[in-house]
Amino acid sequence: MNIVFFVFDGITALDAIGPFDVLAHLPGAKVTFAGLARGDVRTDNGHLALHADAAIAEISGADLLLVPGGLGTRRLLRDPKTLDWIRALDATTRITASVCTGALLLGAAGLLRGRRANTHFAVRERLADYGAIPVADRVVADGKYRTAAGVSAGIDLAFALVIELAGREVAERIQLAIEYAPSPPLDSGTEERAHPDVVRAVRSRVLEAERQALAALGPNPS
Amino acid sequence: MNIVFFVFDGITALDAIGPFDVLAHLPGAKVTFAGLARGDVRTDNGHLALHADAAIAEISGADLLLVPGGLGTRRLLRDPKTLDWIRALDATTRITASVCTGALLLGAAGLLRGRRANTHFAVRERLADYGAIPVADRVVADGKYRTAAGVSAGIDLAFALVIELAGREVAERIQLAIEYAPSPPLDSGTEERAHPDVVRAVRSRVLEAERQALAALGPNPS
Repeated sequence: MNIVFFVFDGITALDAIGPFDVLAHLPGAKVTFAGLARGDVRTDNGHLALHADAAIAEISGADLLLVPGGLGTRRLLRDPKTLDWIRALDATTRITASVCTGALLLGAAGLLRGRRANTHFAVRERLADYGAIPVADRVVADGKYRTAAGVSAGIDLAFALVIELAGREVAERIQLAIEYAPSPPLDSGTEERAHPDVVRAVRSRVLEAERQALAALGPNPS
Repeated sequence: MNIVFFVFDGITALDAIGPFDVLAHLPGAKVTFAGLARGDVRTDNGHLALHADAAIAEISGADLLLVPGGLGTRRLLRDPKTLDWIRALDATTRITASVCTGALLLGAAGLLRGRRANTHFAVRERLADYGAIPVADRVVADGKYRTAAGVSAGIDLAFALVIELAGREVAERIQLAIEYAPSPPLDSGTEERAHPDVVRAVRSRVLEAERQALAALGPNPS
C-alpha cells in the first residue's frame, strides 16, 4: 500500500498528520510526503516545518493519494505543475482523497465534476465552481474519491479508509493504539451546532484570510 | 503566550500536531518546536520528519511546555540533557503538559511525584515507578500539570487548555475552525470498549516495541 501525502507551504498540519498517524499503521504501508520540491514546507500559521522527502516530479504512482488543505491551497489553484501532477497521480490511484480545502485542489484539477464532495464548511459552496455537488457530510465518498470536512475530519476519513482497505479488526486495533475515543469538552464543531456568532466569526476569518491570499496572487490571467 | 513543543526522534507526530493545531489558534500564541538540536526529527514510524526550529539549549522559558510521546521517549528516559531541560523549563511554566508517553518523561524528570497522571493505556501502571498515581481519565489535571491519554487525547487536552487560558468562546471558535465534531466509525478507542483480543494485541505490540527499544540502549548504568 503506497500512500502519498501532498504537502505545500501554507498547509494545515493536522489535515495531514491526523490521517497519517492512522494510515501509517496499515500493514505494509509505505508513506511518502511529497512537495513541489524536496525539503521543508511551512504550515499556514508559520510555526512549524514539515519535511517533504520527495519532490512530486519523482512520484509517478500511488495506491492512495491524500491532499490536505490549508490556506496555501489557494496559491496552488492556478498552478499547472500542481494540478497536472494531481491529475497524473489520480490516474494511477485506487483512492484519491482530500481533507478540508484539499478538495478545492481536487476540484481545480477537474476530478470532482458531477461528484458529491465536501470541504471546510466556510468554503463548501465553492465546490460548485468546479462542477461538484457540495454535501455537508463529515466524509463523502463518490466513486474512488473521498473528501472530508475541515481539518480534524481527516481522522474519521482515515478510519473509513482503513475499514475499507484492511477490514474492521485492523481498524479497531489502530483506534485503540491511538486511543481515538474523542471527548470534546464543548459542542461547537459544526456549523449547525455552533452559536451563530461563532459561525459568523469563523467564516469571516477564513474568507478574509483567503481574500488576502488571492489578492497577493495578482489578477487571474485566465 | 509562549508555547514550546519538545520534539525528538521517535515522536508520534499526532501527539504534537493535534494540540498544535488547536493551541496555535490562541490569540497571541508563539509556538516553538524545540529538539535536542536544531533540525529534523524522524517520527516513530520513520515516514516523516518534523523540523525543530530551536535547540532546547536555546529555550530557557515557556508559558506552556508540551511533551508529546512516541517510542522515542524510552531512549530519553535516562538522558540527563533532556530531563534537566524539562525540569528547568518546568520551573518557568504556567502549565506543563504531556500527551501519551510524554508523561513518562515528565515522570522521569521527577515532576509527577505524588500527582495523579495518565499516559497511553498500555504503559499506564509504569507511572507508579515515578511516584505518580495512574488515573485512566482522558485528560488528568493535578496542580499545573496536565497529562493526556494516548495520541489523539492531545486534542481534547488542548481544548481544555484553551478554555482555561482564553475562555469558552475562543475555544468554541477554534472547535468550529477545525470542525472538531469527531465521528469515529467504530467504538474501539479505549481499553474498556475495545474487544479483549484487540486490547491484548495492541498492548503486546506496544510492549514488544518498547522492549526492543530499551534492549538497544544496553544495561541501565544506575
